[in-house]
Amino acid sequence: MNPDISRERENASFNPEILTNILDGGAEKTRRRREIESLVIGDPDFQHEDLNFLSRSERYDAAVRKSAQMILKLREYGISDPEEIYSYKSIVKGVYQEPFGVHFVMFIPTLNSQCTAEQHKKWIPLAESFRMLGTYAQTELGHGTHIRGLETTATYDPSTQEFVLNSPTISSIKWWPGGLGKTSNHAIVLAQLYTQGKCHGLHAFITPIRCMKTHMPLPGVVVGDIGPKFGFDEVDNGYLKLENVRIPRENMLMKYAKVEPDGTYVKPPSDKLTYGTMVFIRSMIVGESARALSKSCTIAIRYSAVRHQSELRPGEPEPQILDYQAQQYKLFPLLATAYAFHFVGQYMSKTYHRISGYINQGDFSELPELHALSAGLKAFTTWVANAGIELCRMSCGGHGYSRCSSLPDIYVTFTPTCTYEGENTVMMLQTARYLVKSYKQARAGQQLTGTVSYLNEPQSRIQPLSVSSQPTVVNINDLASLVEAYKFRASKLVEMASKNLQAELQHSKSNEDAWNNNSIDLVRASDAHCHYVFFKTYSDKIMCVKHGDTAVHSVLSTLALLYALHGVALNSGDFLQAGLFTVPQLAQISQRLKGLLSELRPNAVALVDAFDYRDEMLNSALGRYDGNVYEHMFEWAKRSPLNHTEVHESHHKYLKPLQSKL
Amino acid sequence: MNPDISRERENASFNPEILTNILDGGAEKTRRRREIESLVIGDPDFQHEDLNFLSRSERYDAAVRKSAQMILKLREYGISDPEEIYSYKSIVKGVYQEPFGVHFVMFIPTLNSQCTAEQHKKWIPLAESFRMLGTYAQTELGHGTHIRGLETTATYDPSTQEFVLNSPTISSIKWWPGGLGKTSNHAIVLAQLYTQGKCHGLHAFITPIRCMKTHMPLPGVVVGDIGPKFGFDEVDNGYLKLENVRIPRENMLMKYAKVEPDGTYVKPPSDKLTYGTMVFIRSMIVGESARALSKSCTIAIRYSAVRHQSELRPGEPEPQILDYQAQQYKLFPLLATAYAFHFVGQYMSKTYHRISGYINQGDFSELPELHALSAGLKAFTTWVANAGIELCRMSCGGHGYSRCSSLPDIYVTFTPTCTYEGENTVMMLQTARYLVKSYKQARAGQQLTGTVSYLNEPQSRIQPLSVSSQPTVVNINDLASLVEAYKFRASKLVEMASKNLQAELQHSKSNEDAWNNNSIDLVRASDAHCHYVFFKTYSDKIMCVKHGDTAVHSVLSTLALLYALHGVALNSGDFLQAGLFTVPQLAQISQRLKGLLSELRPNAVALVDAFDYRDEMLNSALGRYDGNVYEHMFEWAKRSPLNHTEVHESHHKYLKPLQSKL
Repeated sequence: MNPDISRERENASFNPEILTNILDGGAEKTRRRREIESLVIGDPDFQHEDLNFLSRSERYDAAVRKSAQMILKLREYGISDPEEIYSYKSIVKGVYQEPFGVHFVMFIPTLNSQCTAEQHKKWIPLAESFRMLGTYAQTELGHGTHIRGLETTATYDPSTQEFVLNSPTISSIKWWPGGLGKTSNHAIVLAQLYTQGKCHGLHAFITPIRCMKTHMPLPGVVVGDIGPKFGFDEVDNGYLKLENVRIPRENMLMKYAKVEPDGTYVKPPSDKLTYGTMVFIRSMIVGESARALSKSCTIAIRYSAVRHQSELRPGEPEPQILDYQAQQYKLFPLLATAYAFHFVGQYMSKTYHRISGYINQGDFSELPELHALSAGLKAFTTWVANAGIELCRMSCGGHGYSRCSSLPDIYVTFTPTCTYEGENTVMMLQTARYLVKSYKQARAGQQLTGTVSYLNEPQSRIQPLSVSSQPTVVNINDLASLVEAYKFRASKLVEMASKNLQAELQHSKSNEDAWNNNSIDLVRASDAHCHYVFFKTYSDKIMCVKHGDTAVHSVLSTLALLYALHGVALNSGDFLQAGLFTVPQLAQISQRLKGLLSELRPNAVALVDAFDYRDEMLNSALGRYDGNVYEHMFEWAKRSPLNHTEVHESHHKYLKPLQSKL
Repeated sequence: MNPDISRERENASFNPEILTNILDGGAEKTRRRREIESLVIGDPDFQHEDLNFLSRSERYDAAVRKSAQMILKLREYGISDPEEIYSYKSIVKGVYQEPFGVHFVMFIPTLNSQCTAEQHKKWIPLAESFRMLGTYAQTELGHGTHIRGLETTATYDPSTQEFVLNSPTISSIKWWPGGLGKTSNHAIVLAQLYTQGKCHGLHAFITPIRCMKTHMPLPGVVVGDIGPKFGFDEVDNGYLKLENVRIPRENMLMKYAKVEPDGTYVKPPSDKLTYGTMVFIRSMIVGESARALSKSCTIAIRYSAVRHQSELRPGEPEPQILDYQAQQYKLFPLLATAYAFHFVGQYMSKTYHRISGYINQGDFSELPELHALSAGLKAFTTWVANAGIELCRMSCGGHGYSRCSSLPDIYVTFTPTCTYEGENTVMMLQTARYLVKSYKQARAGQQLTGTVSYLNEPQSRIQPLSVSSQPTVVNINDLASLVEAYKFRASKLVEMASKNLQAELQHSKSNEDAWNNNSIDLVRASDAHCHYVFFKTYSDKIMCVKHGDTAVHSVLSTLALLYALHGVALNSGDFLQAGLFTVPQLAQISQRLKGLLSELRPNAVALVDAFDYRDEMLNSALGRYDGNVYEHMFEWAKRSPLNHTEVHESHHKYLKPLQSKL
């Protein structure tokens, strides 16, 4: 054990195990999680060379092997609780992805939710025994988030009772679905349904794409891998071009909408029924943000505790880089954010389950709120985490750039969350639409509920106040008071965006033009709203962690205060414009921030230890628990493929001839 | 040609060729640059498969082949002007790096500047004929930017007149030098010189590491590749561990410091003599930022002109995504920044040559200014470009994540500039040291020159003013007036940091603690100073582009105004705190920004065309000149290594057995 990092642990003011239990939701959950982790980590079937040393094809091969093993092991151990399966899988995957991911996350759930009883009986056993390996083919070359624009067609032919599937244009080629390129033999294809000469919009069709015996592509099916990406190298994201592919009528998922044998189209009873999965995945992404950012913080903070560099005081030994204020200012606000993500992720998961309970009982009243919340928080948290991971990487200096740090892998695996399941700017604008609507309702005297209820609060309190007349209402050491400040900022920006929109309507040709011409303000309002909801949720959670342990409560409160004040400093223009702080108060906040960094300094390593990532899960030479960084970097480097031979063949092929020619 | 992109070009208000000539520095330079580009692009010897389809070893192999070809071609064509060589090489490299890079950029220049006449005669012919292939081994596992902490030792043994080189600890292993792992047979090793029992600090030693005949590592030399990184996969960044490696006394570079045969150490006449290279490379990095960001903008803006998505007005066709204000707000400020980088890069290059002229004549008076300027601007521009590339990538939605966009490659190749040649935060703090010193001198009545001369301006003008009493001094449509605003902001923040530092000194144990406890303020002051210098330089350049062409002048002015106002909006807290703008003015700026986006919209494609990157240099399916994006994505994907067989072997190895077990 590196003595620096031991000393850090000795000096912490609290017991990280208590915090770990809070994060897990109880000591028993911590115990069970660790038990599951040990099953994977001790299992020789899951040992493999670092994927970074392998070619694309080898990476895919290793990933398929692990996925296949995992399925057998889960059955062997009898792990069936969805949360435990999720946990087991995330340990197997590490920072990587699996080619079967879409089969589990989209293919089977879609079958479960959209099959008729008869279809269920036919397809589910095939899918669960992996005879049928499926993917979910929605996005096309030409369309992503805007799914109404998809161009693939499914035209019903009553003479044979078949649908004829086609990719009528280059841009209609299905593109991106995970597991589509090489792994799957079936795809749920989203296509525009045509019957009796009329288009009825998007519907889902179970489409065989490869032979279940030979795995060769079926006639009319052009399928393959879309090529290397920034990350996800172990997954065969694929393309699919359909040329008059005929499937039986029964392959349309018909729980809601139907096509009868003669071609008569039967509408679904409600268009809200397929809302669920998308909202669910967006809600889960907050938890993904928590994991990605807390892993990154663990690596950067542990490394900063053992890395010594430069000179603080003449003649003294080089200090740990964690002692530099500039380094603390990069990492501690991110650490506070990672904790926030954990708590808000738990809240999102609970909220989703609560509201989807109502929805299953036919009560859709909270769906708009849930939709706006999940869209906005998905965008808010993924943007923050995305930038945060890179900040962690760069805070490790050059070594963060090595794949041995694991930080490049965490980044490239995480960054698609800003785009998939709804592009972030589009998500922010969807939330803005809800905010503007709510603002209008509030102005019309309607009583709002949920996260937007603050828009009902008296106008006068959210009017711009000249800075000089503004009393010092915000207590910069009080979380509840700061929550109010974030609320008023959001309120002010929603009001401003709504008013600008109203003003624009007098010049614009249409509502749509006015909307577009105010997108900057709308995104900004949405962001401030999410920031408020996020911080309020975090703060509520901190306040209810009583737990009897004052040391833990104290460190969590310090983190939350740092989060809040750092956010004010970063967005000081908004807060000044809203008249919420005076210029001297902002100077006080700057000073208080420095104080908070010093207060957190002795607990930084213990705070990342509490995330409780085992070395095997971090896979980072820089983030090791024992702090023995350099030794492990050297050992890792020796395994580089370029070191398999002492003299690379290019020396003989190109350098010797070059020397002889000069 | 895609009709959308043709229409964009028809609708531009100016002729991009004129702007290209301005960027190149004249029509003749444009002509010659294009001539050189054609030499590479038409050359079958430089054709190769997309590196993204290759394994690490194949990528390295391809890179060595290209480097060797390039050397022969440069001689064949008689290209010897350094600028033209640079230009030729950057076309060959594309967005990638070359294993010989350090040989050209560090090894030969260091020999040239630090060899005695005798050494020069011996080594230069070997280096220029590539019998000697060299690298520059400075950084170690334990030390990067803080080079005084390097631990490698060179101990002089007078009995044999040799230096004995050692890596005494794990952390002293040389780490990162490009071309060290497999390519080089010599390294200039930076080591602590010991002679006659005394350490004389860092000196440079020519150290043979591999046999010049067999290329095998020499006795006592442990050398290899440090393993895969975020990018630079085609380069063999290496490690080097030295175990009692003996080299002749004559292998120490002795132009300045010397060790005599008996071991007597002779000091160099000045410690400023080796300053030059570092400052030179930092100055050049501004130009690298320009290239990386302008390529990214070219890709994102051309793609946004041909990508149609969603619905602006009901019933109308899907608009180009470039018509969305939110997309314009992401891309146009970056476009303005890319132009700024080009102009400021030219300025830095000229300033470097001017000041280094003085230095060569023994006049070091402007060295501190040059050092502070190059350190700060290096950090300022690389951070901005780094974030900007990722913003461009994400503005392309999912397709930006594909390697076919080239944006991931641009990012991973560029991002190390934030760390190498001086870690950015350390650079900002070095500039801050110069600012604080200058501030004190100004307060003491000393007349300052250069970029900091504004610190001499009357105190009263930079006092905080209460917002209500502040007259509307800044004209938000006037570049010169905005330059003043950026200047006052910088002045205010330098003053605040200096005062906080002064106040802290009353509590802190030492100057060093006080410095560390104010790092946040110091970095912020430095950043504001660089922002001012950067914008002033940009604005000066725009104002002197008279050129007779009003259309070009007009579009450049609009870009510069957008740059300035966007910067005010992003940093509105600073400007409000400094009392430079009122709250209503900020609302005006928001509205003006929206207007500027609309004004630039018709010229966006022409503005990126003017950067004049040929398709072969962008290597991006999304950024193609002809706009035929989807066709080329599909063609590219078909070449993915996973598509070499229809059925991947993992299917037979793992999936068939799995199915049989369930």
